[in-house]
Amino acid sequence: MNLPAVPVPIGKVEGQISSRADDLLAVEEPLEIRLGQQSLSITMRTPGNDVELAAGFLFSEGIVRDISHIRKIENIAQNVVVVELDEASAALVQPRRNFLMTSACGVCGKASLEDLEANACPVLPADNIQIEPDVLHGLPDRLREAQNVFDRTGGLHAAALFSLNGQLELLREDIGRHNALDKLIGAALAGDRLPLDKSLLLVSGRASFELVQKALMAGIPIMAAVGAPSSLAVGTALRSGMTLIGFLRNCRFNIYSGSRRILTN
Amino acid sequence: MNLPAVPVPIGKVEGQISSRADDLLAVEEPLEIRLGQQSLSITMRTPGNDVELAAGFLFSEGIVRDISHIRKIENIAQNVVVVELDEASAALVQPRRNFLMTSACGVCGKASLEDLEANACPVLPADNIQIEPDVLHGLPDRLREAQNVFDRTGGLHAAALFSLNGQLELLREDIGRHNALDKLIGAALAGDRLPLDKSLLLVSGRASFELVQKALMAGIPIMAAVGAPSSLAVGTALRSGMTLIGFLRNCRFNIYSGSRRILTN
Repeated sequence: MNLPAVPVPIGKVEGQISSRADDLLAVEEPLEIRLGQQSLSITMRTPGNDVELAAGFLFSEGIVRDISHIRKIENIAQNVVVVELDEASAALVQPRRNFLMTSACGVCGKASLEDLEANACPVLPADNIQIEPDVLHGLPDRLREAQNVFDRTGGLHAAALFSLNGQLELLREDIGRHNALDKLIGAALAGDRLPLDKSLLLVSGRASFELVQKALMAGIPIMAAVGAPSSLAVGTALRSGMTLIGFLRNCRFNIYSGSRRILTN
Repeated sequence: MNLPAVPVPIGKVEGQISSRADDLLAVEEPLEIRLGQQSLSITMRTPGNDVELAAGFLFSEGIVRDISHIRKIENIAQNVVVVELDEASAALVQPRRNFLMTSACGVCGKASLEDLEANACPVLPADNIQIEPDVLHGLPDRLREAQNVFDRTGGLHAAALFSLNGQLELLREDIGRHNALDKLIGAALAGDRLPLDKSLLLVSGRASFELVQKALMAGIPIMAAVGAPSSLAVGTALRSGMTLIGFLRNCRFNIYSGSRRILTN
C-alpha cells in the first residue's frame, strides 16, 4: 500500500532540552516511467496516483494530446509505471544522447531504478564532532542577515555553510534549492576545500533526498533545514551517518538522525 | 550583467481594491552545461556563480573528485557554461539514450537552449472570464481544509483546481510541486476534461516557469500561487495570456499578468 506519510521517532529539542517524540514524514520515493521497455524518466515523488502522474507528465511534455493516445498505462511494480502509446504519440518521443549517467548516487543521470539503487550514497568517516544546540539555534538569524536577495523577492532558496561554532563561511542563493547547494559545493571545490568535514550546512527550505545526497558527496556531517525532511532524506542520512536536523526555527528543532553529534540535556 | 532580481510593475490587491506597485522578482533562466560540444544538462537557475554551479553539479554527480579534474570551465555565453574534463573524469560520463525530447515547451526533455527557445508555450485562446477578488481570497482556506497530509507533515506541495466561482474540483499532493500538478493534469486527462479552460489553479508554493508551462499546456486561464513567482514564470504568463497571481494570502494578492480577468475597484 502506498502511504503519503510515515511516522518516525525523533529527538525534539527546545532550548537545550531534548525529548523523544514521533514525527510524520512525507514519503519520497523514485518513480520510473517507462515507454514499453524503454526508461523515459525518473522522478522523486510521493507514492499515490502514479498512473495520473505518468499521464500528466506525458501530456505536459506534449507527447499525448488526449487519453486516446494512451493504449495502456499501469503500475507494474510499486515504483514503476509502464505506458503504451499509439503510433502517432510514440513518434513524438525521440531518445537523445544528452543526459549524463555516472557512478554517483544522484538522481539526475540515472537511467533506471536499478542504477539508482545500485549506487548507494557514501558513508561518512568516523568523527568526534559534537555541538551545542545554541549553535544551531543561532543559524537561521545569521542566514537571514546575510541573504541579500531572499528577503526582497521571497523567491530564492539559500544554502549556507557554517563552521562548527556557527560562523557563516559561505552562502549561495538560487531559485532552485539544488542549484544553491551545487553553487556552494562548486565554490568549495574551486577553493580546494572539499571534503567539508568540519562544517554545518543550513538550507532555507525542506530537506529532500537530492540535497542530502549532495551534502554527503561533499562530506558534510551535519545538515539542518528550516523546513521538513522527506522520508528518503531521513533514510539516507541514517544509512550514511549524517546528522539531519529539521524545522530549525524559534529555538527549536527536530533531530532525525545522528543525534550523537548534538549535546542536549 | 547577471542580476538575481528584476523589478516588475504589478497590481496589488487588498480586499477589493487594486493599486499599482512595483515588485522584485527572483530571476529564473535556463543554464546549459556542456562537456565540450556535448550538451549535458539544462537547469532552470538564478544567474550568477554559474561556473560554480556547473562545477558543483559535476562534483555532486560524481564526475569530478577535485578541481584538478577540470581542465577548463567557462561561461561562453550568458546561459552556457562549457567544461573540459581530464580523461579520467570524461570516462565517467556515459551518454545514455534514456531521456525524452518532445515538441512541448517543458524543460524536462530539452537537449539544448535552442530546443527550449524554439518551442514556445501555447497562447491561450480568447475568453471573457472575469472573477471577483473574493473568489481568490477564499481559495487558500479551502485548500488547507482539503489537504489531508500537508498539515501533518509540513512536507507536501499541493495543486488544486477550482471552478470559476471557487468550488474545489480536484486536489493532488506531492513532495514535488511539478509532480502534484502532473497528477492533477493526469487526472483531468483520464476524465477527458482537458482543456481546463474554465478553471482556476492554486499551487501551495512558488510559481516557477515549469508550473506555468504545465498549466498552459492544460489550457488553464488563471493560476494563483501562495508564494512568489519567478521572472520567467511572469514572462511566460504575459506572452501566453494567462492571469498569474502571487502571494495569495490574508485577503491580499499580487497580479503579475492578465489583470483583465480580475474585477477590482
